[in-house]
Amino acid sequence: MSAFTSRLLEALGPDVVRTEPEDLAVFAFDAYSEDRLPAAAVIPRNAREVARAIAIARECGEPVVPRGAGTGLCGGAVPSRGGLVISFARMNRLLELDVRNRRARVQPGLINLELSHAIASQGVFYAPDPSSQKISTIGGNVGTNAGGAHCLRYGTTTNHVLGLEYVDTHGAVHRVSLDDPGYDLTGVLVGSEGTLGVITEVDVRLMTVPEAVRVCVAAFADVESASEAVSAIIGAGIVPTALEIMDALITRAVEAHYHAGYPENAGAVLLAELAGTHDDVAAGEALLARIAKDHGALSWRAARDQAECDALWAARKGAAGAIGRIAPNYYIQDACVPRTRLPEVMHEIDAIARDHQLPVGNVFHAGDGNLHPLLIFDRRERRQVDAVVAAGTEILRTCIAMGGTISGEHGIGYEKKESLSLVFSPDDLAAMGNVRAVFDPARAFNPDKIFPAGARCGEVGPPVHA
Amino acid sequence: MSAFTSRLLEALGPDVVRTEPEDLAVFAFDAYSEDRLPAAAVIPRNAREVARAIAIARECGEPVVPRGAGTGLCGGAVPSRGGLVISFARMNRLLELDVRNRRARVQPGLINLELSHAIASQGVFYAPDPSSQKISTIGGNVGTNAGGAHCLRYGTTTNHVLGLEYVDTHGAVHRVSLDDPGYDLTGVLVGSEGTLGVITEVDVRLMTVPEAVRVCVAAFADVESASEAVSAIIGAGIVPTALEIMDALITRAVEAHYHAGYPENAGAVLLAELAGTHDDVAAGEALLARIAKDHGALSWRAARDQAECDALWAARKGAAGAIGRIAPNYYIQDACVPRTRLPEVMHEIDAIARDHQLPVGNVFHAGDGNLHPLLIFDRRERRQVDAVVAAGTEILRTCIAMGGTISGEHGIGYEKKESLSLVFSPDDLAAMGNVRAVFDPARAFNPDKIFPAGARCGEVGPPVHA
Repeated sequence: MSAFTSRLLEALGPDVVRTEPEDLAVFAFDAYSEDRLPAAAVIPRNAREVARAIAIARECGEPVVPRGAGTGLCGGAVPSRGGLVISFARMNRLLELDVRNRRARVQPGLINLELSHAIASQGVFYAPDPSSQKISTIGGNVGTNAGGAHCLRYGTTTNHVLGLEYVDTHGAVHRVSLDDPGYDLTGVLVGSEGTLGVITEVDVRLMTVPEAVRVCVAAFADVESASEAVSAIIGAGIVPTALEIMDALITRAVEAHYHAGYPENAGAVLLAELAGTHDDVAAGEALLARIAKDHGALSWRAARDQAECDALWAARKGAAGAIGRIAPNYYIQDACVPRTRLPEVMHEIDAIARDHQLPVGNVFHAGDGNLHPLLIFDRRERRQVDAVVAAGTEILRTCIAMGGTISGEHGIGYEKKESLSLVFSPDDLAAMGNVRAVFDPARAFNPDKIFPAGARCGEVGPPVHA
Repeated sequence: MSAFTSRLLEALGPDVVRTEPEDLAVFAFDAYSEDRLPAAAVIPRNAREVARAIAIARECGEPVVPRGAGTGLCGGAVPSRGGLVISFARMNRLLELDVRNRRARVQPGLINLELSHAIASQGVFYAPDPSSQKISTIGGNVGTNAGGAHCLRYGTTTNHVLGLEYVDTHGAVHRVSLDDPGYDLTGVLVGSEGTLGVITEVDVRLMTVPEAVRVCVAAFADVESASEAVSAIIGAGIVPTALEIMDALITRAVEAHYHAGYPENAGAVLLAELAGTHDDVAAGEALLARIAKDHGALSWRAARDQAECDALWAARKGAAGAIGRIAPNYYIQDACVPRTRLPEVMHEIDAIARDHQLPVGNVFHAGDGNLHPLLIFDRRERRQVDAVVAAGTEILRTCIAMGGTISGEHGIGYEKKESLSLVFSPDDLAAMGNVRAVFDPARAFNPDKIFPAGARCGEVGPPVHA
């Protein structure tokens, strides 16, 4: 046993600390393809224990990686240099609910959907809804600034975080809030993927459950015409709560698994949700249906009841999982383009996939211009793995060329750190590195994430203005 | 003529550069009480000229202060150490309008209201509306993260900035965007009051002009009961576009000047605005009127037509100016409390003003819990000046004790820098100082603003984690 693990055990006890390889295996990976065993993991019960573990890791020179549910697609929770993993599995409580001021204070390990379930009887909900929301945690969502289908109307996680408690690299506990005057440190912590501080409490904004919600489904001949309809809807000044597109491949896989009632023979399906008063959603639906028809919709229908709405959403949010029926492996890309370029980028993605002889499915937050091309392959075939990597990068480059960017909501993590150089100059990256150095000069918090590897020291070079 | 001014003149010419005291006088002050002549001012036409001036200032060791319309109440645009003032009076154009994607690119000197006027025919508007919007600039609004009456529903400036172009302390031009992956540098620049970079372009989010807008006015016996009504409205899950309160003193001054139709004999007036579809606003008004009556409203009426709406808003936004009719000087405080503490804090403010024998008027963004007590005094009476300063600080302390903070929307600037220590620990301030050092290690950009004076070097000490 190392000095590091024995100090952790001494300070926090065997109930909190894990050091055996068979116990550590579950902390070695997330939903990305890399994994590595940490030297130790802790499952603390409060911020004091988090702070203690961080202070010991610092004294022993060990890196620190916080971990929510491990559903991240970009390797953000992988302890790529070993060290300490902090699991928030036990810090999963709703601490305070203030319905009158529409706020709640939660621990970072609370599962996203469980928060909304716990407060539903009060007529309020937590808006950001990544497709992983049945299992991913609020803390993980904060780390990646997670999006979701309803972020079209409500914004991403950063728009719903009012304040944070976090532990710094010295093991000191701080609290920051949107209400603070001065620089917006809450904002820079959200989406920083564990590189600036380890979050131990989150103050979230709550929203009022709308009087009426209507979920509609339209069939189109192809993804391009569905995309045109989406652009026209937003251009007309309507912002539905969600505007999602699935292409034929995804729709068929989803229907085979969920039988939710999507039109199986369409070239593309548009899922639109409206929320507001009863009159609102009725008027909104009429307008959306007209725009969809004007852009070639082959059919339009609204879900009849709550059960059908739930089924349509469950199927949409389970789309990636449903692909398991038709392929041994898949790779989900996450990228953005300006909404008006959607038809064009869909055409390009199709061509890229064809060039690499890879089947591609498209399921995406169309209203946000946030693409999720899903490349299907077999990991056992080396040629296919190489093709996926090449095609994924080409898709990113295509999106950038259209004025888009390399990530919409999954974060950068380990997967996309080298791609960051596609959108930022060395000076830009150095400026970000300098911001990091304010919080974590030793780069001990989630090393190897976000930043491309430098020429010498494995991360970005010295501050550009030093 | 100094080396500094002659280098500026040589590089940018006499059309851009001002060096004579009589020309510099207009750049010496803003709406705060301090003033100082700069060594030089430039009125550049583009980012290249801004960058050139900043590079020369750096080489000559002169501080740099950017200036919009000079309407700031906290001294943020005062060149407290002389140096260079950069006026954006000429960089005031709407550069690009993309209605379909609801974005516009503007220069920082564009006046807030002129943007909305310029794009009104397209059915879109720019939401943040500080009361100064007829004269204050988008760039200044970005610097202070300006709020306004409609920020209750739409959020403050930071929620409407999609990207920025800025010049760093070296005179290099950068562009950052909310669409960037990695740390949110756009967010940290908004509200940084010119201490991190000099903004040369702003990409703003546009919103769709609602189908219907209804402005309603209710009279109450006192500010406490009006505040209770506001808290009940939000607690019921309704978020009107604005919920403003004026007390009796303010209402009478405003009516004497504007004759807008506010009830002059009420103890307090609530101005509520609803926007949405025609059905929406009708239903919303019925609900608001019922809640107001339940909380003691003496009257409730809706404006009959657009002219009356405009008059009510013009009067509300001109409230501070109207005080000129009844007092030689006034001091507007800006502070926040949780909305549910409004009745209590109004009571406390009243007691503080009475203790100091100062008349106080209250006009505030009640829906946001953002107070603007307006202390009336005569600058020629030393006792009154001292009393205003003492009462202002007591009001801030009272707000902090109730879980509030020292600024809602006016910024910190020169005025409140010492008060920052009331809400932040030395460690907190050092962390902010470190963030600043990333962008401006020499503290040449707007020195003496935001940060309290340190024990030795006039600003915060060395980085706490260095």
